[in-house]
Amino acid sequence: MWVIACAAMTTANYSKLLSHIEWVGDAGTEYLKLLDQTQLPLATSYLECTTTEHVWEAIRRLSVRGAPAIGIAAAYGCVIGAMTALRAGQTARSGLDEAGTYLATSRPTAVNLFWAIKQMKRTGEGFSGEDASLPGHLLDEARRIHNEDRAACRAIGDHGLDLLESLGVIEEGSPPTLRLLTHCNAGALATGGIGTATAPMYMGRERGLDVRVYADETRPLMQGARLTAYELSEGGVDVTLLTDSMAGWAMRNGLVRAVITGADRIAANGDTANKVGTYSLAVLAKHHGIPFLVAAPLSTIDFDTLDGSAIPIEQREAAEITEGFGVRTAPLNQQVYSPAFDVTPAELITAIVTEHGVVRDPITCHTMKSVRQGRAR
Amino acid sequence: MWVIACAAMTTANYSKLLSHIEWVGDAGTEYLKLLDQTQLPLATSYLECTTTEHVWEAIRRLSVRGAPAIGIAAAYGCVIGAMTALRAGQTARSGLDEAGTYLATSRPTAVNLFWAIKQMKRTGEGFSGEDASLPGHLLDEARRIHNEDRAACRAIGDHGLDLLESLGVIEEGSPPTLRLLTHCNAGALATGGIGTATAPMYMGRERGLDVRVYADETRPLMQGARLTAYELSEGGVDVTLLTDSMAGWAMRNGLVRAVITGADRIAANGDTANKVGTYSLAVLAKHHGIPFLVAAPLSTIDFDTLDGSAIPIEQREAAEITEGFGVRTAPLNQQVYSPAFDVTPAELITAIVTEHGVVRDPITCHTMKSVRQGRAR
Repeated sequence: MWVIACAAMTTANYSKLLSHIEWVGDAGTEYLKLLDQTQLPLATSYLECTTTEHVWEAIRRLSVRGAPAIGIAAAYGCVIGAMTALRAGQTARSGLDEAGTYLATSRPTAVNLFWAIKQMKRTGEGFSGEDASLPGHLLDEARRIHNEDRAACRAIGDHGLDLLESLGVIEEGSPPTLRLLTHCNAGALATGGIGTATAPMYMGRERGLDVRVYADETRPLMQGARLTAYELSEGGVDVTLLTDSMAGWAMRNGLVRAVITGADRIAANGDTANKVGTYSLAVLAKHHGIPFLVAAPLSTIDFDTLDGSAIPIEQREAAEITEGFGVRTAPLNQQVYSPAFDVTPAELITAIVTEHGVVRDPITCHTMKSVRQGRAR
Repeated sequence: MWVIACAAMTTANYSKLLSHIEWVGDAGTEYLKLLDQTQLPLATSYLECTTTEHVWEAIRRLSVRGAPAIGIAAAYGCVIGAMTALRAGQTARSGLDEAGTYLATSRPTAVNLFWAIKQMKRTGEGFSGEDASLPGHLLDEARRIHNEDRAACRAIGDHGLDLLESLGVIEEGSPPTLRLLTHCNAGALATGGIGTATAPMYMGRERGLDVRVYADETRPLMQGARLTAYELSEGGVDVTLLTDSMAGWAMRNGLVRAVITGADRIAANGDTANKVGTYSLAVLAKHHGIPFLVAAPLSTIDFDTLDGSAIPIEQREAAEITEGFGVRTAPLNQQVYSPAFDVTPAELITAIVTEHGVVRDPITCHTMKSVRQGRAR
């Protein structure tokens, strides 16, 4: 086995990273501390959210982003709403409801946001104790959502590493080497734990592997450069940045043994929508005989969407391409093509890794269902 | 045939573009006028080069770039050197020699630069008339080099369009439509004429085709956004900008019927070094059953380099990726992978289009030689 104790890391090495969403302070003065991701990679600064307005603003401004992370932040935001109401002489229950309704308007298309708020409201509805003790129960629920996501990330990391080993991707040696390429940020910064696509990277390090990651910068919004390169470095993983256009050449030169990305939405047949550029990577991986893996929590699979053709592709504003860095790099009024996402057909995906297991060869509606039923390999 | 007179454009539409290198003024006050490409796309400003130092500086600063364009600018620079010497009471011949030696230091790896200077010096050596009339003869030679390049571009455009038609890339309709994707800038701005990869685009427009070009922005240095989008717009060609990561998805959606790029250096077997990202496009084109064409003057083919493995790949500075726009987009001291070029193997290239004809299926050392001997199809 490639688990080498001597080189092993502990999770302590990335505790700072995991605390990008953190509930801090003493009873009565508690607040939500959020890493302000809009300042990365230039500055590591934190927001102290003591009001629901602070949380709303943080989600709106993308200070916290990534579906699971947004949900967790909103859950803590509901706790703040209940606490604040109680202090103002109102009921905690009314504060919870108001906070939930309000926070749901911060990112109107974020499914996890609605889900987390619904969970919190349900906790309030089901609560039969004294109103003054509701905030404590809500905090327990927010922590449960947070911990559950953290556990899901580690389960994805476990399944992902097992899969990478069974695919022969881990190169023998002392220590063994794992060379991966990723796109965008499906990392710790997008979740409450060690990320989805990044989970096998961090856990590979824990187990003593020499993990080497190539991170696409991910134009136009540079999540790879700004976020993934930052968090992997912080987490002790060797990371090399490259432009999206260099990925094919890196594969041809044997620098990469597998590609692993996150997913925005996975259709019932396995077709996967993710940050634009993912599809090209899947084609390039196929050409080079390299496994292409998607890592995502089960909640990303939309069993009501039959296949990728039913996933709408948002077109983004031209300025993201023409003035992406506050500097104009294209002619005035230049027309652009700027899909936010692309859809990788299931046949180009070697495996989909979830916290409940792995779906692989073949990826079909039938095998996809097995993962929901806990029957995936 | 798809040549429709009513919709035809004339070269007049892009005369401004063609004059990015221009010898202007009256006898005695002549100078070299150069478009300052470092200011594109924000400003269209011209440099008036009245001394060899001006020309040297323009080449050094990349105000003029692209192998053929650099050679042409240097040739005119030699004329300026001879004229200046004569006015200062020295011989034109000594001015020529000094200018040539000096200008050769402006871009030490530019093959066309050395070639053009050698041509100019040879003209000086072979000149048997009065020294005072040498500048006029040198000017004739510089103009010959310029015109020859202009003619080569048009020949590439002719061969390219014929090839695209024979490959069935031109869609029937009224007018017929030609949908191409290109990378970097192998355009008018890099040559003395209508470019290499862009030549079929401009000539397609002349012949009344509805030409629609997708231009990769071409990270890290953005030549596609800054130069190709600019010049195609100026030249009346419909151009849409996209990030490099979007090209595959554009192909999958049928927006592109062929890919055409330039070349930095072509090996004897057809393997082609070009701006990084070209290789990925060739793989993507193959996956989508789309022709992948390379357009380049014969001088780009290095018959002494047996295959692509012998072409050295320059690694560029990290800052081009991490601070490409004067704005840092990655962590401090981030390690990067930044090859300037990649090599596309001949088997992924549908055809190589030169001014002497086309090499296609199969591209081999044997068929490559035929183009040198004027026997290409």
